[in-house]
Amino acid sequence: MRRLASLLPILDWAPRYSRAEAVADLLAAVIVTIMLVPQSLAYAMLAGLPPVVGLYASILPLVAYAIFGTSRTLAVGPVAVVSLMTAAAVGPIVAAGMADHVTAAITLAFLSGLVLLAMAVLRLGVLANFLSHPVISGFITASGILIAAGQTKHILGIAAAGETLPEIMRGLAQGATETNFATLAIGSAAAAFLFWARRSLKPLLLRAGLGRRVADLVARAGPLAAIIVSILVVPALGLDSAGVRIVGEIPAGLPPFAWPSLDASLWRELLPAAVLISLVGFVESASVAQTLAAKRRQRIVANQELIGLGVANIAAAVSGGYPVTGGFARSVVNFDAGAETPLAGALTAIGILAATLFLTPLFRYLPQAVLAATIIVAVLSLVDLAAIRRTWTYSKADFAAMAATITLVLLVGVEAGIVAGVGLSLLFFLWRTSTPHIAIVGQVPGTEHFRNVERHSVITSPDLLSIRIDESLYFANARFLEDRVLAEVAARPGLRHVVLMCSAVNMIDASALESLEAIADRLHSGGVGFHLSEVKGPVMDALKRSDFFDHFRGLVFLSQHAAMTALTGAKEQQPTAEPTIPATLP
Amino acid sequence: MRRLASLLPILDWAPRYSRAEAVADLLAAVIVTIMLVPQSLAYAMLAGLPPVVGLYASILPLVAYAIFGTSRTLAVGPVAVVSLMTAAAVGPIVAAGMADHVTAAITLAFLSGLVLLAMAVLRLGVLANFLSHPVISGFITASGILIAAGQTKHILGIAAAGETLPEIMRGLAQGATETNFATLAIGSAAAAFLFWARRSLKPLLLRAGLGRRVADLVARAGPLAAIIVSILVVPALGLDSAGVRIVGEIPAGLPPFAWPSLDASLWRELLPAAVLISLVGFVESASVAQTLAAKRRQRIVANQELIGLGVANIAAAVSGGYPVTGGFARSVVNFDAGAETPLAGALTAIGILAATLFLTPLFRYLPQAVLAATIIVAVLSLVDLAAIRRTWTYSKADFAAMAATITLVLLVGVEAGIVAGVGLSLLFFLWRTSTPHIAIVGQVPGTEHFRNVERHSVITSPDLLSIRIDESLYFANARFLEDRVLAEVAARPGLRHVVLMCSAVNMIDASALESLEAIADRLHSGGVGFHLSEVKGPVMDALKRSDFFDHFRGLVFLSQHAAMTALTGAKEQQPTAEPTIPATLP
Repeated sequence: MRRLASLLPILDWAPRYSRAEAVADLLAAVIVTIMLVPQSLAYAMLAGLPPVVGLYASILPLVAYAIFGTSRTLAVGPVAVVSLMTAAAVGPIVAAGMADHVTAAITLAFLSGLVLLAMAVLRLGVLANFLSHPVISGFITASGILIAAGQTKHILGIAAAGETLPEIMRGLAQGATETNFATLAIGSAAAAFLFWARRSLKPLLLRAGLGRRVADLVARAGPLAAIIVSILVVPALGLDSAGVRIVGEIPAGLPPFAWPSLDASLWRELLPAAVLISLVGFVESASVAQTLAAKRRQRIVANQELIGLGVANIAAAVSGGYPVTGGFARSVVNFDAGAETPLAGALTAIGILAATLFLTPLFRYLPQAVLAATIIVAVLSLVDLAAIRRTWTYSKADFAAMAATITLVLLVGVEAGIVAGVGLSLLFFLWRTSTPHIAIVGQVPGTEHFRNVERHSVITSPDLLSIRIDESLYFANARFLEDRVLAEVAARPGLRHVVLMCSAVNMIDASALESLEAIADRLHSGGVGFHLSEVKGPVMDALKRSDFFDHFRGLVFLSQHAAMTALTGAKEQQPTAEPTIPATLP
Repeated sequence: MRRLASLLPILDWAPRYSRAEAVADLLAAVIVTIMLVPQSLAYAMLAGLPPVVGLYASILPLVAYAIFGTSRTLAVGPVAVVSLMTAAAVGPIVAAGMADHVTAAITLAFLSGLVLLAMAVLRLGVLANFLSHPVISGFITASGILIAAGQTKHILGIAAAGETLPEIMRGLAQGATETNFATLAIGSAAAAFLFWARRSLKPLLLRAGLGRRVADLVARAGPLAAIIVSILVVPALGLDSAGVRIVGEIPAGLPPFAWPSLDASLWRELLPAAVLISLVGFVESASVAQTLAAKRRQRIVANQELIGLGVANIAAAVSGGYPVTGGFARSVVNFDAGAETPLAGALTAIGILAATLFLTPLFRYLPQAVLAATIIVAVLSLVDLAAIRRTWTYSKADFAAMAATITLVLLVGVEAGIVAGVGLSLLFFLWRTSTPHIAIVGQVPGTEHFRNVERHSVITSPDLLSIRIDESLYFANARFLEDRVLAEVAARPGLRHVVLMCSAVNMIDASALESLEAIADRLHSGGVGFHLSEVKGPVMDALKRSDFFDHFRGLVFLSQHAAMTALTGAKEQQPTAEPTIPATLP
């Protein structure tokens, strides 16, 4: 039962479901539905798909996540970044004539679902940890810019193609002469209104005396208001015959039962994109879920989240949708609106199903320019220039990874950007660990604590050199340590002992072990003792497994202070622990 | 002048060259020449090249290295592993009809020279550090097996092709029926003699009363003796007409002036092999040079070594040779024979030049089987099965990298083996650092030292949790730390303070900084204080550059002991350092 409950988190909360929770969930569901309907239409357009596909992707996946996901408040559905990645993945497939847009998108969702489930089975959720924060942040900022630029053609009412920022800008520049001014008017009015609503409406309503929660909800209904007004204005002024492109007829009815293509060559083409979409979607979703769970002291189980999102994507695939994940804005709205359990998600699904069944005729006159405006306003809030500045100040390596990600996303594509960012992050890490910080240390007066002689005024001995290496010892830095220790010893002719302080050594691999043996041999042949201190338990265990102590002629001390006391014959303090050959740890 | 001397190490020793050094160098040169002539012929055959190419590769490169290299005793020339790699790289080029063997080999040497010089200019010598010890050891062992298997066809006197061990074994099995028994007799006699000479001749000579040094030199002349005897026996018994393949006519004369092909597509094909040959050659050469230099307290400058080997390879290319590097066996012989300066290398070059000019007619009747026997005996000494066992005992991760290298070298090829080994080593390192060891620590009684509660009997406080993370904090383990700290806190309801002991934290990247802020926020909102101790200088510098301390509400302690004393109000000992907000370090 317990095992089953961990696989089906619904069993955790459903049996104890209360009336109060039901009311809270229902209210949240209504609010999220109002927000999600226009978003779903818009993101589908961004993904290059018919608008109704966005609605389909917001029904069954929500139900699937409600059953299998661990977050109580995550709202799953189409999101901006994944929609952009879908467009980038599907485009070449359609251009090559391998499948139509919808089939390719459905297959991509199915593959993403399989990838997520495979990651769950193989417990590979940790892979997401290799997407560093600067890479994700840079990726989202660049995606926001790319999406906003790409949607501008809808505001201008022109046809323009392009995947990268230079292509998009060239397309816009070439098409600008054909601008449809009616479209431009309605699009820029909608954008201006939405920017205003996002920035200034809530403070205005608060000052007008509305409660914080109501003000917040009214402000968030901005996109819906823009859509309703434009749907009324377009047919009234006959703008659709003046060249304003409208969404047109959206087929009403239940989501179709769909089935992904099983074409192996299509799978091969889509797999890299599916893997990246899964990783990016999982990272976005898990970080939202974790943030919200922490606020209510609930728990997210990363592996179960993979299952939840995996099933949600397969649900999207079989009901004519496209890749989905947990979205930031809508989850926060769901949380703020008081959602208590995943049932809020299921109720939202019912709301969107109702919209799909009954309201789609109303969207006929919705101008694409207004959808584009909602996308632009939404994604520009993702652009975080402050994070770029902050990263620059803190770490040039992190900044370089971020800058590479941004540049490549804008100039080459989303996948190239992520791959380059992750690759660069790993390279910097390896580079950094291969040339570690090494400090000569001395005793802080009056304590048993040892610190860098260059930063602190400490006690040292001419007989004894205490070296602290600030890194695990492994193949990439083994020779570096060897060179440095031998150089330091060569510079001190009167030296009798060298103690390597291993407080920061978390691992010694086979290559570094050879180096340690070489250092010990060379120092010994020069009449200098070589000792270790503060060797950690796991490292000591490993050393004892090897034949290191068969020919290591030095001592191992529990602490640097013990080493200093024993080796310099200092009498002012008792040795704190006996040296041991080899050290035995209780 | 000083700058020039660092670029031309010859200026360091040449002006002070003494008569005693000259005598020592001359003696060493004679001995190394005797050893190098048969080796050069044999390794050229191993590389699939005419034997004389091996001689050419042992003349100008030695002079070039004598001028530019920093090792006083390194002997440069053709070596077994690089010869094997050359054969593997040249084979497909010749098969594809892009160039003949010699042109491809010359071009490969030229490219290797350029790669080595580029590595010197870009100071990329550290790249060699990424070839871990188990990978190199596994690679050399597998190469030894592959070379020995590949040379067996010459002992049997059959034609057999094959690059991988299964192919070679299949070729030998198919060809075994055609065995030429005269060849087999002379080849196995030579192999048996050489094994005996290597193992038993020196002890025998020592027991017979010869001096250690003379015994050593006589034993090392074994290959030369085998060659001389076989050259006399073959024409005397007319074995060459009985099907024993002989080296045949070797053109006498100066090395030709050669020029590498400048065909761009050939360069593209050869470049990956050139990079790997450069790296492997550099690692082999540098480790020999370092070992020998340490014995006489001399210094090797890694970057200058790259220049020395780079120029040596370009010298090989323009004089009709093939890729060269510093060889282990011949350098040790040079050292033991008393070589004092690189002039010994230049004198060796003159010796080999003399052999090329005057002695090549003598090699006409040399059986290929005898050359193969010298190769087999030499390379089987490289096979180090004890290292495999040692690595298995010490570290399963290192063993896995080693096993992958060996398996892929034998089954796929030398390049695949190295790439897989390095890749796997890096993956294991990343995996390891992404799931670091985390210990709850307490005070060792009577000291200011803190150790793992699970390994030591230590003093802890119910108010205060001291956690030590044994790794730098970076993107791959940031969430891991977050989860673990929050889980530990959740398990201790009465907790008032958490101190993160950062003695093993050598870096905090931007992602980990976000995690630290998240941990601090969450603990604070739960009424638990979050503090740091033993933060290292460079890490503290970075934290101060960020806005971390603007919202970090905890304290930073110089030592864990200071934290414990201050936070638990312990009165038995004086606080060793004042807590600081943010900590200021002198």
